[in-house]
Amino acid sequence: MDSTVLYQGKAKNVHSTENEQELRLEYLDQATALNGKKKDHIIGKGSLNNQITSLIFSYLTEKKIPHHWIKQLSSNEQLVKRVEIIPLEVVLRNIATGSFTKRLGVEEGTKLPFPIIEFYYKDDSLDDPFINEDHIEFLQLASKEEVIELKENALKINQLLQTLFEEIGVTLVDFKLEFGKDYEGQIILSDEITPDTCRLWDKETGESLDKDIYRKDLGEIVPIYEEILTRLKGRGA
Amino acid sequence: MDSTVLYQGKAKNVHSTENEQELRLEYLDQATALNGKKKDHIIGKGSLNNQITSLIFSYLTEKKIPHHWIKQLSSNEQLVKRVEIIPLEVVLRNIATGSFTKRLGVEEGTKLPFPIIEFYYKDDSLDDPFINEDHIEFLQLASKEEVIELKENALKINQLLQTLFEEIGVTLVDFKLEFGKDYEGQIILSDEITPDTCRLWDKETGESLDKDIYRKDLGEIVPIYEEILTRLKGRGA
Ligand SMILES: Nc1ncnc2c1ncn2[C@@H]1O[C@H](COP(=O)(O)OP(=O)(O)OP(=O)(O)O)[C@@H](O)[C@H]1O
Ligand SMILES: Nc1ncnc2c1ncn2[C@@H]1O[C@H](COP(=O)(O)OP(=O)(O)OP(=O)(O)O)[C@@H](O)[C@H]1O
Ligand SMILES: [Mg+2]
Ligand SMILES: [Mg+2]
Repeated sequence: MDSTVLYQGKAKNVHSTENEQELRLEYLDQATALNGKKKDHIIGKGSLNNQITSLIFSYLTEKKIPHHWIKQLSSNEQLVKRVEIIPLEVVLRNIATGSFTKRLGVEEGTKLPFPIIEFYYKDDSLDDPFINEDHIEFLQLASKEEVIELKENALKINQLLQTLFEEIGVTLVDFKLEFGKDYEGQIILSDEITPDTCRLWDKETGESLDKDIYRKDLGEIVPIYEEILTRLKGRGA
Repeated sequence: MDSTVLYQGKAKNVHSTENEQELRLEYLDQATALNGKKKDHIIGKGSLNNQITSLIFSYLTEKKIPHHWIKQLSSNEQLVKRVEIIPLEVVLRNIATGSFTKRLGVEEGTKLPFPIIEFYYKDDSLDDPFINEDHIEFLQLASKEEVIELKENALKINQLLQTLFEEIGVTLVDFKLEFGKDYEGQIILSDEITPDTCRLWDKETGESLDKDIYRKDLGEIVPIYEEILTRLKGRGA
Protein backbone atom coordinates (compact mmCIF):
# COMPACT_ATOMS: atom_id res chain seq x y z
CA MET A 1 0.00 0.00 0.00
CA ASP A 2 1.25 3.46 -0.86
CA SER A 3 1.75 5.39 2.37
CA THR A 4 4.17 7.03 4.77
CA VAL A 5 4.90 5.89 8.31
CA LEU A 6 3.85 8.78 10.52
CA TYR A 7 4.82 7.17 13.82
CA GLN A 8 6.62 4.01 14.84
CA GLY A 9 5.08 2.86 18.10
CA LYS A 10 5.94 0.03 20.43
CA ALA A 11 2.87 -1.99 19.42
CA LYS A 12 1.94 -0.55 16.03
CA ASN A 13 3.08 1.67 13.21
CA VAL A 14 0.83 4.49 12.13
CA HIS A 15 0.59 5.06 8.35
CA SER A 16 -1.08 7.84 6.42
CA THR A 17 -3.56 6.91 3.66
CA GLU A 18 -4.86 8.69 0.56
CA ASN A 19 -7.67 9.98 2.76
CA GLU A 20 -6.41 12.81 4.99
CA GLN A 21 -8.93 11.83 7.73
CA GLU A 22 -7.96 8.17 7.89
CA LEU A 23 -4.94 6.24 9.09
CA ARG A 24 -3.75 2.69 8.68
CA LEU A 25 -2.58 1.02 11.89
CA GLU A 26 -0.12 -1.82 11.37
CA TYR A 27 -0.02 -4.10 14.42
CA LEU A 28 3.52 -5.30 15.12
CA ASP A 29 4.93 -8.65 16.18
CA GLN A 30 6.49 -7.04 19.18
CA ALA A 31 5.91 -7.06 22.92
CA THR A 32 7.29 -4.47 25.33
CA ALA A 33 7.04 -3.88 29.06
CA LEU A 34 8.57 -1.59 31.67
CA ASN A 35 8.14 1.42 29.39
CA GLY A 36 10.09 -0.31 26.62
CA LYS A 37 13.01 -1.60 28.71
CA LYS A 38 11.84 -5.17 28.09
CA LYS A 39 11.21 -5.90 24.41
CA ASP A 40 10.73 -9.03 22.30
CA HIS A 41 9.82 -10.08 18.79
CA ILE A 42 6.76 -12.34 19.03
CA ILE A 43 5.51 -13.84 15.77
CA GLY A 44 1.74 -13.73 15.46
CA LYS A 45 1.08 -11.15 18.15
CA GLY A 46 0.38 -8.28 15.74
CA SER A 47 -2.23 -10.26 13.86
CA LEU A 48 -3.88 -11.52 17.06
CA ASN A 49 -4.17 -8.05 18.57
CA ASN A 50 -5.44 -6.58 15.31
CA GLN A 51 -8.18 -9.22 15.17
CA ILE A 52 -9.05 -8.95 18.87
CA THR A 53 -9.31 -5.16 18.89
CA SER A 54 -11.32 -5.28 15.64
CA LEU A 55 -13.87 -7.64 17.19
CA ILE A 56 -14.12 -5.49 20.31
CA PHE A 57 -14.51 -2.23 18.39
CA SER A 58 -17.17 -3.74 16.15
CA TYR A 59 -19.02 -4.81 19.33
CA LEU A 60 -18.71 -1.19 20.55
CA THR A 61 -20.16 -0.01 17.23
CA GLU A 62 -23.29 -2.11 17.93
CA LYS A 63 -23.43 -0.47 21.34
CA LYS A 64 -23.23 3.02 19.83
CA ILE A 65 -19.90 4.03 21.37
CA PRO A 66 -18.16 6.64 19.15
CA HIS A 67 -14.70 5.35 18.20
CA HIS A 68 -11.95 5.52 15.59
CA TRP A 69 -12.05 1.99 14.17
CA ILE A 70 -13.42 1.69 10.63
CA LYS A 71 -12.47 -1.77 9.40
CA GLN A 72 -9.88 -4.49 9.36
CA LEU A 73 -7.70 -4.31 6.23
CA SER A 74 -5.59 -7.42 6.57
CA SER A 75 -4.37 -9.85 9.19
CA ASN A 76 -2.30 -7.17 10.94
CA GLU A 77 -3.71 -3.90 9.58
CA GLN A 78 -6.78 -1.81 10.24
CA LEU A 79 -8.23 1.45 9.01
CA VAL A 80 -9.09 4.08 11.63
CA LYS A 81 -10.23 7.68 11.77
CA ARG A 82 -7.33 10.02 12.33
CA VAL A 83 -7.60 11.75 15.68
CA GLU A 84 -5.46 14.02 17.74
CA ILE A 85 -4.72 11.77 20.68
CA ILE A 86 -5.40 13.31 24.11
CA PRO A 87 -2.12 12.51 25.89
CA LEU A 88 -3.80 10.70 28.77
CA GLU A 89 -3.98 7.06 29.64
CA VAL A 90 -7.40 6.55 31.18
CA VAL A 91 -7.13 3.55 33.47
CA LEU A 92 -10.22 1.92 34.95
CA ARG A 93 -9.98 -0.72 37.66
CA ASN A 94 -12.63 -3.21 38.79
CA ILE A 95 -10.26 -5.38 40.84
CA ALA A 96 -7.11 -4.31 42.69
CA THR A 97 -3.85 -5.50 41.15
CA GLY A 98 -0.53 -4.15 39.91
CA SER A 99 0.60 -0.64 40.86
CA PHE A 100 -2.73 0.01 42.61
CA THR A 101 -2.11 -2.61 45.29
CA LYS A 102 1.39 -1.27 45.88
CA ARG A 103 0.38 2.39 46.00
CA LEU A 104 -2.54 1.92 48.40
CA GLY A 105 -1.48 -1.18 50.32
CA VAL A 106 -4.58 -3.06 49.17
CA GLU A 107 -4.60 -6.83 48.86
CA GLU A 108 -4.11 -8.25 45.36
CA GLY A 109 -7.43 -9.38 43.92
CA THR A 110 -9.65 -7.18 46.11
CA LYS A 111 -12.95 -6.51 44.33
CA LEU A 112 -13.38 -2.74 44.23
CA PRO A 113 -16.75 -1.40 45.46
CA PHE A 114 -16.94 0.89 42.41
CA PRO A 115 -14.83 1.26 39.24
CA ILE A 116 -11.80 3.40 40.07
CA ILE A 117 -10.45 5.72 37.37
CA GLU A 118 -6.87 6.99 37.19
CA PHE A 119 -5.20 9.30 34.70
CA TYR A 120 -1.62 8.92 33.56
CA TYR A 121 0.17 11.54 31.49
CA LYS A 122 1.31 9.94 28.20
CA ASP A 123 4.92 11.13 28.20
CA ASP A 124 7.61 8.49 27.81
CA SER A 125 10.39 10.84 28.98
CA LEU A 126 8.54 11.20 32.31
CA ASP A 127 7.61 7.48 32.45
CA ASP A 128 3.86 8.16 32.02
CA PRO A 129 3.33 9.62 35.51
CA PHE A 130 0.12 9.22 37.50
CA ILE A 131 -1.53 12.65 37.71
CA ASN A 132 -4.66 14.30 39.09
CA GLU A 133 -7.30 16.56 37.54
CA ASP A 134 -5.57 19.78 38.58
CA HIS A 135 -2.47 18.55 36.74
CA ILE A 136 -4.57 17.82 33.63
CA GLU A 137 -5.94 21.34 33.70
CA PHE A 138 -2.52 22.89 34.32
CA LEU A 139 -0.90 20.92 31.49
CA GLN A 140 -3.91 21.77 29.31
CA LEU A 141 -4.34 18.12 28.35
CA ALA A 142 -8.12 18.37 28.58
CA SER A 143 -10.68 20.82 29.93
CA LYS A 144 -12.70 20.12 33.07
CA GLU A 145 -15.75 19.28 30.93
CA GLU A 146 -13.65 16.94 28.79
CA VAL A 147 -12.33 15.16 31.90
CA ILE A 148 -15.93 14.54 32.98
CA GLU A 149 -16.68 13.22 29.48
CA LEU A 150 -13.62 10.95 29.55
CA LYS A 151 -14.68 9.48 32.88
CA GLU A 152 -18.29 8.97 31.77
CA ASN A 153 -17.09 7.28 28.60
CA ALA A 154 -14.71 5.03 30.51
CA LEU A 155 -17.50 3.95 32.87
CA LYS A 156 -19.89 3.20 30.01
CA ILE A 157 -17.25 1.27 28.09
CA ASN A 158 -16.42 -0.66 31.26
CA GLN A 159 -20.02 -1.86 31.59
CA LEU A 160 -20.12 -2.96 27.97
CA LEU A 161 -16.74 -4.69 28.11
CA GLN A 162 -17.58 -6.41 31.39
CA THR A 163 -20.66 -7.88 29.72
CA LEU A 164 -18.68 -8.92 26.65
CA PHE A 165 -15.93 -10.64 28.63
CA GLU A 166 -18.43 -12.18 31.03
CA GLU A 167 -19.96 -13.97 28.05
CA ILE A 168 -16.63 -15.60 27.22
CA GLY A 169 -15.79 -16.61 30.80
CA VAL A 170 -13.36 -13.81 31.49
CA THR A 171 -13.24 -11.23 34.29
CA LEU A 172 -12.30 -7.73 33.18
CA VAL A 173 -9.91 -6.70 35.95
CA ASP A 174 -8.69 -3.37 34.62
CA PHE A 175 -7.85 -1.66 31.35
CA LYS A 176 -6.30 1.42 29.75
CA LEU A 177 -8.10 3.55 27.19
CA GLU A 178 -6.92 6.37 24.94
CA PHE A 179 -9.23 8.96 23.49
CA GLY A 180 -8.70 11.45 20.70
CA LYS A 181 -10.43 14.32 18.97
CA ASP A 182 -11.60 13.79 15.42
CA TYR A 183 -11.62 16.55 12.78
CA GLU A 184 -14.94 17.82 14.16
CA GLY A 185 -13.48 18.10 17.68
CA GLN A 186 -15.56 15.14 18.93
CA ILE A 187 -13.92 13.00 21.59
CA ILE A 188 -13.87 9.39 20.39
CA LEU A 189 -12.36 6.21 21.75
CA SER A 190 -9.09 5.43 19.95
CA ASP A 191 -5.99 3.23 20.11
CA GLU A 192 -6.56 -0.44 20.95
CA ILE A 193 -8.40 -2.76 23.32
CA THR A 194 -6.40 -5.97 23.51
CA PRO A 195 -4.80 -8.27 26.09
CA ASP A 196 -1.91 -5.74 25.95
CA THR A 197 -4.14 -3.03 27.41
CA CYS A 198 -6.54 -5.05 29.61
CA ARG A 199 -6.06 -7.38 32.54
CA LEU A 200 -8.22 -10.43 31.87
CA TRP A 201 -8.60 -13.30 34.33
CA ASP A 202 -10.13 -16.63 33.41
CA LYS A 203 -13.33 -16.96 35.46
CA GLU A 204 -12.76 -20.66 36.21
CA THR A 205 -9.04 -20.88 36.87
CA GLY A 206 -8.20 -17.26 37.78
CA GLU A 207 -5.29 -17.42 35.31
CA SER A 208 -4.08 -14.27 33.55
CA LEU A 209 -5.09 -14.18 29.89
CA ASP A 210 -3.19 -10.99 29.10
CA LYS A 211 0.18 -9.25 28.91
CA ASP A 212 0.93 -10.02 32.57
CA ILE A 213 2.09 -13.39 31.18
CA TYR A 214 4.83 -11.46 29.39
CA ARG A 215 5.46 -8.83 32.10
CA LYS A 216 5.95 -11.54 34.73
CA ASP A 217 7.62 -14.13 32.46
CA LEU A 218 4.86 -16.68 33.06
CA GLY A 219 5.00 -18.29 29.62
CA GLU A 220 4.10 -17.83 25.96
CA ILE A 221 1.62 -15.13 25.13
CA VAL A 222 0.59 -16.29 21.65
CA PRO A 223 -1.52 -19.25 22.85
CA ILE A 224 -3.12 -17.02 25.48
CA TYR A 225 -4.02 -14.28 23.00
CA GLU A 226 -5.26 -17.00 20.61
CA GLU A 227 -7.51 -18.28 23.38
CA ILE A 228 -9.05 -14.81 23.82
CA LEU A 229 -9.53 -14.46 20.05
CA THR A 230 -11.11 -17.89 19.75
CA ARG A 231 -13.53 -17.23 22.59
CA LEU A 232 -14.48 -13.82 21.15
CA LYS A 233 -15.07 -15.35 17.73
CA GLY A 234 -17.18 -18.14 19.23
CA ARG A 235 -19.30 -15.73 21.27
CA GLY A 236 -23.02 -16.37 20.90
CA ALA A 237 -22.22 -19.27 18.54
CA MET B 1 2.08 19.02 83.72
CA ASP B 2 0.23 15.82 84.50
CA SER B 3 -0.47 13.95 81.24
CA THR B 4 0.19 10.91 79.08
CA VAL B 5 1.98 10.89 75.75
CA LEU B 6 -0.61 9.68 73.25
CA TYR B 7 1.65 9.81 70.20
CA GLN B 8 5.32 10.43 69.60
CA GLY B 9 5.63 12.18 66.25
CA LYS B 10 8.63 13.22 64.22
CA ALA B 11 8.04 16.93 64.95
CA LYS B 12 5.91 16.87 68.10
CA ASN B 13 4.62 14.74 70.91
CA VAL B 14 0.90 14.67 71.53
CA HIS B 15 -0.17 14.69 75.18
CA SER B 16 -3.58 14.26 76.73
CA THR B 17 -4.82 16.89 79.21
CA GLU B 18 -7.40 16.88 82.01
CA ASN B 19 -9.91 18.03 79.40
CA GLU B 20 -10.95 15.15 77.19
CA GLN B 21 -11.47 17.51 74.20
CA GLU B 22 -8.06 19.16 74.38
CA LEU B 23 -4.50 18.06 73.69
CA ARG B 24 -1.10 19.51 74.46
CA LEU B 25 1.31 19.52 71.54
CA GLU B 26 4.97 19.54 72.53
CA TYR B 27 7.15 20.77 69.66
CA LEU B 28 10.41 18.85 69.50
CA ASP B 29 14.01 19.91 68.82
CA GLN B 30 14.14 17.49 65.93
CA ALA B 31 14.26 17.73 62.15
CA THR B 32 13.50 14.86 59.80
CA ALA B 33 13.36 14.44 56.04
CA LEU B 34 12.92 11.64 53.50
CA ASN B 35 10.09 10.15 55.55
CA GLY B 36 12.32 9.94 58.65
CA LYS B 37 15.41 8.45 57.01
CA LYS B 38 17.30 11.71 57.68
CA LYS B 39 16.98 12.86 61.31
CA ASP B 40 18.77 15.41 63.51
CA HIS B 41 18.54 16.99 66.93
CA ILE B 42 18.31 20.75 66.44
CA ILE B 43 18.24 22.86 69.60
CA GLY B 44 15.71 25.68 69.43
CA LYS B 45 13.67 24.31 66.52
CA GLY B 46 10.74 23.12 68.65
CA SER B 47 10.31 26.50 70.30
CA LEU B 48 10.62 28.39 67.00
CA ASN B 49 8.00 26.24 65.26
CA ASN B 50 5.66 26.43 68.24
CA GLN B 51 5.87 30.24 68.20
CA ILE B 52 5.57 30.51 64.40
CA THR B 53 2.55 28.23 64.12
CA SER B 54 0.93 30.01 67.09
CA LEU B 55 1.27 33.40 65.39
CA ILE B 56 -0.11 32.00 62.13
CA PHE B 57 -3.06 30.27 63.77
CA SER B 58 -3.93 33.41 65.76
CA TYR B 59 -3.89 35.31 62.44
CA LEU B 60 -6.28 32.66 61.05
CA THR B 61 -8.53 33.18 64.11
CA GLU B 62 -8.85 36.87 63.13
CA LYS B 63 -9.75 35.69 59.63
CA LYS B 64 -12.46 33.36 60.96
CA ILE B 65 -10.88 30.09 59.78
CA PRO B 66 -12.02 27.21 62.04
CA HIS B 67 -8.94 25.50 63.50
CA HIS B 68 -7.63 23.46 66.40
CA TRP B 69 -5.20 25.92 68.02
CA ILE B 70 -6.32 27.35 71.37
CA LYS B 71 -3.24 28.96 72.90
CA GLN B 72 0.49 28.76 73.44
CA LEU B 73 1.32 27.20 76.80
CA SER B 74 5.08 27.61 76.93
CA SER B 75 8.03 28.10 74.66
CA ASN B 76 7.55 24.71 73.02
CA GLU B 77 4.01 23.69 73.98
CA GLN B 78 0.53 24.62 72.82
CA LEU B 79 -3.01 23.68 73.65
CA VAL B 80 -5.22 22.46 70.78
CA LYS B 81 -8.66 20.97 70.29
CA ARG B 82 -8.48 17.22 69.97
CA VAL B 83 -9.55 16.10 66.51
CA GLU B 84 -9.64 12.89 64.61
CA ILE B 85 -7.07 13.62 61.93
CA ILE B 86 -8.23 12.93 58.36
CA PRO B 87 -5.30 10.86 57.05
CA LEU B 88 -4.64 13.15 54.09
CA GLU B 89 -1.89 15.62 53.43
CA VAL B 90 -3.52 18.43 51.51
CA VAL B 91 -0.77 20.05 49.45
CA LEU B 92 -1.35 23.37 47.70
CA ARG B 93 1.16 24.75 45.19
CA ASN B 94 1.48 28.32 43.87
CA ILE B 95 4.89 27.81 42.28
CA ALA B 96 6.35 24.63 40.78
CA THR B 97 9.13 23.04 42.79
CA GLY B 98 10.11 19.71 44.37
CA SER B 99 8.30 16.53 43.36
CA PHE B 100 5.90 18.50 41.15
CA THR B 101 8.62 19.59 38.73
CA LYS B 102 9.91 16.02 38.52
CA ARG B 103 6.52 14.40 38.05
CA LEU B 104 5.32 16.78 35.34
CA GLY B 105 8.59 17.90 33.76
CA VAL B 106 7.87 21.54 34.61
CA GLU B 107 10.66 24.02 35.14
CA GLU B 108 11.60 24.78 38.75
CA GLY B 109 10.12 28.12 39.83
CA THR B 110 7.32 28.21 37.24
CA LYS B 111 4.49 30.39 38.55
CA LEU B 112 1.34 28.27 38.36
CA PRO B 113 -1.69 29.86 36.65
CA PHE B 114 -3.93 28.68 39.51
CA PRO B 115 -3.26 27.02 42.87
CA ILE B 116 -2.82 23.29 42.33
CA ILE B 117 -4.06 20.91 45.02
CA GLU B 118 -2.73 17.39 45.59
CA PHE B 119 -3.72 14.77 48.12
CA TYR B 120 -1.28 12.37 49.74
CA TYR B 121 -2.38 9.45 51.86
CA LYS B 122 -0.86 9.81 55.35
CA ASP B 123 0.56 6.33 55.72
CA ASP B 124 4.23 6.03 56.64
CA SER B 125 4.39 2.34 55.69
CA LEU B 126 3.37 3.31 52.12
CA ASP B 127 5.61 6.42 52.10
CA ASP B 128 2.62 8.83 51.99
CA PRO B 129 1.62 8.08 48.38
CA PHE B 130 0.11 10.64 46.02
CA ILE B 131 -3.52 9.64 45.42
CA ASN B 132 -6.61 10.85 43.56
CA GLU B 133 -10.19 11.45 44.63
CA ASP B 134 -11.38 7.97 43.63
CA HIS B 135 -8.69 6.55 45.92
CA ILE B 136 -9.89 8.81 48.76
CA GLU B 137 -13.42 7.53 48.32
CA PHE B 138 -12.32 3.91 48.06
CA LEU B 139 -10.14 4.14 51.18
CA GLN B 140 -13.01 6.00 52.89
CA LEU B 141 -10.64 8.75 54.01
CA ALA B 142 -13.23 11.44 53.30
CA SER B 143 -16.57 11.67 51.50
CA LYS B 144 -16.94 13.47 48.17
CA GLU B 145 -18.52 16.46 49.94
CA GLU B 146 -15.68 16.52 52.46
CA VAL B 147 -13.10 16.50 49.67
CA ILE B 148 -14.79 19.57 48.18
CA GLU B 149 -14.75 21.19 51.61
CA LEU B 150 -11.04 20.38 52.08
CA LYS B 151 -10.18 21.94 48.71
CA GLU B 152 -12.26 25.06 49.39
CA ASN B 153 -10.63 25.44 52.79
CA ALA B 154 -7.15 25.00 51.34
CA LEU B 155 -7.81 27.67 48.70
CA LYS B 156 -9.16 30.14 51.27
CA ILE B 157 -6.24 29.51 53.63
CA ASN B 158 -3.85 29.95 50.71
CA GLN B 159 -5.21 33.42 50.00
CA LEU B 160 -4.90 34.43 53.63
CA LEU B 161 -1.41 33.00 54.03
CA GLN B 162 -0.23 34.57 50.77
CA THR B 163 -1.31 37.97 52.12
CA LEU B 164 0.34 37.31 55.47
CA PHE B 165 3.67 36.24 53.96
CA GLU B 166 3.55 39.00 51.36
CA GLU B 167 3.54 41.50 54.23
CA ILE B 168 6.81 40.08 55.55
CA GLY B 169 8.57 39.91 52.20
CA VAL B 170 8.08 36.19 51.65
CA THR B 171 6.57 34.27 48.73
CA LEU B 172 4.38 31.33 49.73
CA VAL B 173 5.50 28.69 47.22
CA ASP B 174 3.59 25.66 48.52
CA PHE B 175 2.43 24.12 51.77
CA LYS B 176 0.89 21.03 53.36
CA LEU B 177 -2.19 21.13 55.54
CA GLU B 178 -3.87 18.56 57.74
CA PHE B 179 -7.48 18.71 58.75
CA GLY B 180 -9.38 16.84 61.43
CA LYS B 181 -12.87 16.37 62.75
CA ASP B 182 -13.70 17.82 66.14
CA TYR B 183 -16.13 16.18 68.61
CA GLU B 184 -19.05 17.77 66.73
CA GLY B 185 -17.86 16.29 63.40
CA GLN B 186 -16.80 19.71 62.09
CA ILE B 187 -13.80 19.70 59.79
CA ILE B 188 -11.19 22.08 61.21
CA LEU B 189 -7.63 22.95 60.23
CA SER B 190 -5.18 21.09 62.47
CA ASP B 191 -1.52 20.17 62.84
CA GLU B 192 1.01 22.95 62.16
CA ILE B 193 1.88 25.72 59.71
CA THR B 194 5.61 26.29 59.96
CA PRO B 195 8.71 26.41 57.75
CA ASP B 196 8.64 22.61 58.11
CA THR B 197 5.34 22.45 56.22
CA CYS B 198 5.61 25.44 53.84
CA ARG B 199 8.05 26.44 51.15
CA LEU B 200 8.88 30.10 51.72
CA TRP B 201 11.13 32.10 49.41
CA ASP B 202 12.55 35.49 50.31
CA LYS B 203 10.98 38.02 47.92
CA GLU B 204 14.25 39.93 47.45
CA THR B 205 16.89 37.22 47.28
CA GLY B 206 14.80 34.17 46.28
CA GLU B 207 16.48 32.22 49.09
CA SER B 208 14.66 29.36 50.81
CA LEU B 209 13.47 30.28 54.30
CA ASP B 210 12.18 26.81 55.14
CA LYS B 211 13.01 23.14 55.65
CA ASP B 212 14.53 22.87 52.15
CA ILE B 213 17.65 24.28 53.88
CA TYR B 214 17.72 21.06 55.89
CA ARG B 215 16.48 18.70 53.13
CA LYS B 216 19.17 19.94 50.76
CA ASP B 217 21.92 20.49 53.37
CA LEU B 218 22.16 24.20 52.57
CA GLY B 219 23.03 25.35 56.08
CA GLU B 220 21.64 25.94 59.57
CA ILE B 221 17.88 26.10 59.92
CA VAL B 222 17.67 27.84 63.31
CA PRO B 223 18.72 31.32 62.03
CA ILE B 224 16.33 30.91 59.09
CA TYR B 225 13.37 29.93 61.25
CA GLU B 226 14.32 32.79 63.63
CA GLU B 227 14.18 35.16 60.67
CA ILE B 228 10.63 34.05 59.85
CA LEU B 229 9.58 34.38 63.50
CA THR B 230 11.14 37.86 63.80
CA ARG B 231 9.43 39.06 60.64
CA LEU B 232 6.06 37.65 61.75
CA LYS B 233 6.42 39.29 65.16
CA GLY B 234 7.36 42.62 63.56
CA ARG B 235 4.43 42.54 61.15
CA GLY B 236 2.47 45.77 61.10
CA ALA B 237 4.86 47.21 63.70
N1 LIG C 1 -6.91 7.00 15.56
C1 LIG C 1 -5.68 7.41 15.84
N2 LIG C 1 -5.18 8.55 15.31
C2 LIG C 1 -3.93 8.95 15.61
N3 LIG C 1 -3.09 8.30 16.44
C3 LIG C 1 -3.54 7.16 17.02
C4 LIG C 1 -4.85 6.66 16.76
N4 LIG C 1 -5.02 5.54 17.51
C5 LIG C 1 -3.87 5.35 18.20
N5 LIG C 1 -2.97 6.32 17.91
C6 LIG C 1 -1.59 6.44 18.42
O1 LIG C 1 -0.77 5.57 17.68
C7 LIG C 1 0.48 5.44 18.35
C8 LIG C 1 1.08 4.10 18.11
O2 LIG C 1 0.53 3.13 18.96
P1 LIG C 1 1.46 2.29 19.94
O3 LIG C 1 0.53 1.63 20.92
O4 LIG C 1 2.42 1.45 19.20
O5 LIG C 1 2.26 3.48 20.65
P2 LIG C 1 3.23 3.38 21.90
O6 LIG C 1 4.55 2.85 21.54
O7 LIG C 1 2.45 2.73 23.01
O8 LIG C 1 3.51 4.91 22.19
P3 LIG C 1 2.68 5.96 22.94
O9 LIG C 1 3.43 6.16 24.21
O10 LIG C 1 2.65 7.15 22.03
O11 LIG C 1 1.30 5.34 23.17
C9 LIG C 1 0.21 5.84 19.79
O12 LIG C 1 0.84 7.08 20.05
C10 LIG C 1 -1.31 6.00 19.83
O13 LIG C 1 -1.69 6.96 20.80
N1 LIG D 1 -5.53 18.69 66.98
C1 LIG D 1 -5.01 17.48 66.82
N2 LIG D 1 -5.61 16.39 67.36
C2 LIG D 1 -5.08 15.16 67.20
N3 LIG D 1 -3.94 14.91 66.52
C3 LIG D 1 -3.30 15.94 65.96
C4 LIG D 1 -3.79 17.26 66.07
N4 LIG D 1 -2.96 18.10 65.37
C5 LIG D 1 -1.98 17.30 64.86
N5 LIG D 1 -2.17 16.02 65.21
C6 LIG D 1 -1.32 14.86 64.86
O1 LIG D 1 -0.22 14.86 65.76
C7 LIG D 1 0.74 13.93 65.26
C8 LIG D 1 2.13 14.39 65.65
O2 LIG D 1 2.62 15.38 64.80
P1 LIG D 1 3.97 15.16 63.98
O3 LIG D 1 3.99 16.24 62.95
O4 LIG D 1 5.14 15.04 64.90
O5 LIG D 1 3.66 13.74 63.32
P2 LIG D 1 4.52 13.00 62.20
O6 LIG D 1 5.73 12.38 62.78
O7 LIG D 1 4.66 13.94 61.05
O8 LIG D 1 3.60 11.78 61.87
P3 LIG D 1 2.37 11.68 60.97
O9 LIG D 1 2.88 10.89 59.80
O10 LIG D 1 1.32 10.97 61.80
O11 LIG D 1 1.99 13.11 60.62
C9 LIG D 1 0.46 13.82 63.77
O12 LIG D 1 -0.04 12.50 63.52
C10 LIG D 1 -0.63 14.85 63.54
O13 LIG D 1 -1.48 14.46 62.47
MG1 LIG E 1 0.35 2.26 23.04
MG1 LIG F 1 3.69 15.86 60.76
